[in-house]
Amino acid sequence: MIRYHARWVVPVTAPAIRDGTVVVDGRTIEWVGPRSEAPAGRDVDLGEAILCPGLVNTHCHLELTVMRGFLEGLGFRDWILRLTTGKRAVLSRDDLLDSARLGVMEGIRSGITTYADTCDSGVAFDAMLEAGVRGIMFQEVFGPDPAQRDASMAELRAKVDLLLPRATGLVRLGVSPHAPYTVSDPLFTAVAEYAVEQELPVAVHIAESEAESDLVARAGGLFADGLRRRGIALSPRGRSPIDLLHRTGLLAVRPLLIHAVRADDADIALVRAHDAAIAHCPVSNAKLGHGIAPLLAWRDAGIRVGLGSDSVASNNRMDLLAEAHAATLMQSAARRTADVLRAHEALDLATIGGARALGLADRIGSLEAGKDADLAAFALNGGSALPVQEPESALVHSLRSSDAILTVVAGTPLLQHGQVVRGDQGVTRRVSAAAVRLAGWLLDAGGSGDPLPPASPTR
Amino acid sequence: MIRYHARWVVPVTAPAIRDGTVVVDGRTIEWVGPRSEAPAGRDVDLGEAILCPGLVNTHCHLELTVMRGFLEGLGFRDWILRLTTGKRAVLSRDDLLDSARLGVMEGIRSGITTYADTCDSGVAFDAMLEAGVRGIMFQEVFGPDPAQRDASMAELRAKVDLLLPRATGLVRLGVSPHAPYTVSDPLFTAVAEYAVEQELPVAVHIAESEAESDLVARAGGLFADGLRRRGIALSPRGRSPIDLLHRTGLLAVRPLLIHAVRADDADIALVRAHDAAIAHCPVSNAKLGHGIAPLLAWRDAGIRVGLGSDSVASNNRMDLLAEAHAATLMQSAARRTADVLRAHEALDLATIGGARALGLADRIGSLEAGKDADLAAFALNGGSALPVQEPESALVHSLRSSDAILTVVAGTPLLQHGQVVRGDQGVTRRVSAAAVRLAGWLLDAGGSGDPLPPASPTR
Repeated sequence: MIRYHARWVVPVTAPAIRDGTVVVDGRTIEWVGPRSEAPAGRDVDLGEAILCPGLVNTHCHLELTVMRGFLEGLGFRDWILRLTTGKRAVLSRDDLLDSARLGVMEGIRSGITTYADTCDSGVAFDAMLEAGVRGIMFQEVFGPDPAQRDASMAELRAKVDLLLPRATGLVRLGVSPHAPYTVSDPLFTAVAEYAVEQELPVAVHIAESEAESDLVARAGGLFADGLRRRGIALSPRGRSPIDLLHRTGLLAVRPLLIHAVRADDADIALVRAHDAAIAHCPVSNAKLGHGIAPLLAWRDAGIRVGLGSDSVASNNRMDLLAEAHAATLMQSAARRTADVLRAHEALDLATIGGARALGLADRIGSLEAGKDADLAAFALNGGSALPVQEPESALVHSLRSSDAILTVVAGTPLLQHGQVVRGDQGVTRRVSAAAVRLAGWLLDAGGSGDPLPPASPTR
Repeated sequence: MIRYHARWVVPVTAPAIRDGTVVVDGRTIEWVGPRSEAPAGRDVDLGEAILCPGLVNTHCHLELTVMRGFLEGLGFRDWILRLTTGKRAVLSRDDLLDSARLGVMEGIRSGITTYADTCDSGVAFDAMLEAGVRGIMFQEVFGPDPAQRDASMAELRAKVDLLLPRATGLVRLGVSPHAPYTVSDPLFTAVAEYAVEQELPVAVHIAESEAESDLVARAGGLFADGLRRRGIALSPRGRSPIDLLHRTGLLAVRPLLIHAVRADDADIALVRAHDAAIAHCPVSNAKLGHGIAPLLAWRDAGIRVGLGSDSVASNNRMDLLAEAHAATLMQSAARRTADVLRAHEALDLATIGGARALGLADRIGSLEAGKDADLAAFALNGGSALPVQEPESALVHSLRSSDAILTVVAGTPLLQHGQVVRGDQGVTRRVSAAAVRLAGWLLDAGGSGDPLPPASPTR
């Protein structure tokens, strides 16, 4: 038994405890309460720190860590094109695996214990297994042409057949039909049926950009132009992207909806009626110019919502405390009302909300006896957090993820005293070298010039 | 001569230098360029880091550091009332001085070298002198009743007469008529005349809240109700708060306009015509529900703009990199356009823009031979910044202020190897104790109940 003591313990589903203790037995939280009443065990005193549940990242692309800062100042379609062509032209599978490893390390340094990753190459699965973190890798599938459906499904089945036997209690597999501009309606339907048959969770990028809405609602706009150039016949596919998911049957499998920035009242009613969940990515949404999502309407509708960093190609960091902070600021700014999303609500999104969105709330997301011991602790003496009135407010409004000193997954410490236990093993050096190759490729390709549209865009 | 080497040197007014060096001679920057060409000197190798100009905070309230997290979830008027009554009821001058000391320490830890502080008690002046930072303390003056004008001016003159002889090349004095809801039109005019006579810079909180606009344009709203209860006769004072400054003569002294969130095209034309400057506080503006300021319109009008943290009672941190980040995200979200404010522009705001806004651009704000040696360096290996494509983007989008490892003011290191040179000396402990007294006072006063309106609100 290990007793983790801290100035504050924030269980999330119960009030904060000053001078609190979390007792861990093996993989499991045994006890949570005031230090003075803690049962016996070996002591780990975190001192002036806040101990809380490990943070849950409901949307990332670990393999894209190498592309940090590589896609600045681009419109959404150019952004995707540079990403996909650069990735194909320059990066090997080993590069992508190192990139995913660096991403997981960044998350561990930031108190993130669970990663919901959407990935084409599969490297995120290996990186999460290696590192000992918890996660779901959603295997991506593409096919904007209805005629591609069977080929895309065959490819998906083959990839799932390889990965699924390697899934563990910590690292699970799901599937992700990428987005309406890369997936046809028949393919959405086929993936939905396959997910039910295989009992796999589903995630989908949806309702993110104006170009995507234009494609779905009126078969027009930038994505439509690109698809027509590839010889794909288009017609309107629904009132909205979320309506498209409803019509194709995907909404019925309770998918994780990534972004959903452009969701009106009718869309929100659909999401709620099907108990779909949302991965809210406020920094990515803002930076890429998609706007401010209707988070308060989701909250009021009782929709399951977590926070996601998206890839660092768009963000440019993986930092759930920063996402929680941005979520509060964006809503207050949009509503012109102070603190319209309170700090404790934003912290919920980063922990128990994310766990609910991923269907993992029985195991993680809060500090409760019987749950798995996924923990994070943030030091208060780093310079921007004292004095503390409410620790939830300190976590969201004052602390930085770089204040993380402890990250524990299922009882195993992955970050201790602010240091990654497993270490770097040359990953940063190799990823930096790959980034230099990317920059060289961009120069050779004529700076920001228009790369060729890819056959199967991914991000 | 000291040679500061870093993986990247970002002069701000010139392109970034890979493997660059800044050579400092005493208080002054002697040379900036590639490491391979640097003149001789003692070496300080910062390694994998970005070396840039010291950050310029164009608006803070150092004395309010003790109130971090004390004012969550309040509307603007309740926020000000709890701040002012709590401060008066609980905090001694020594408490406020410690609070300002803690604020400066937070800034030094975050790479901030210059502080434009508005302060009633005067403690910020002492805290800045003690710490060795650069700054301007704007002595606040209050008086919402026109009949108070002469008394307020006498009080202001007395305070200035005490402080001005103690001003140095680093720490200067200015004056600040607080805001339209605490300063009458005759007092604005009198302060403007006094500032010209004494050659003192001027700062003013302006165009921040809807209640303030209501007061100025139609003598209505929450602030008007409060002032009328104190027996002050009110009538409309201008088309807008900025128009009020124009009418009273304050705009003619080229003041630093704090916030200016609610500035329409006519207001912006006035600001530009008078070459007034703006302290832009995107996090505070968002968190307090004032909205998103028209930063791009200011930029396009060529107005001098810097970034400010505001007090940590509203923010809740002093972090200029976070302000630069928030500035970009807010503008991209509002305009629904990716990266509509580029990273290098946001970094400009935090450095040379702030220097221009404060009238200090001849001495600071960029790394140029002949300027004062105000430097900051941020470590890249903290976990969220690699790989780097453009160091300006890394500073704004990836790094956290807590990655600061070096802060130098006029050649003197105040932060070295990530540690504050001068140390804490019990300040954090004493401020934390004062914060506990504040919390106790709030409980005694009946939780979030309505405190009495103060005679002279300040923030």
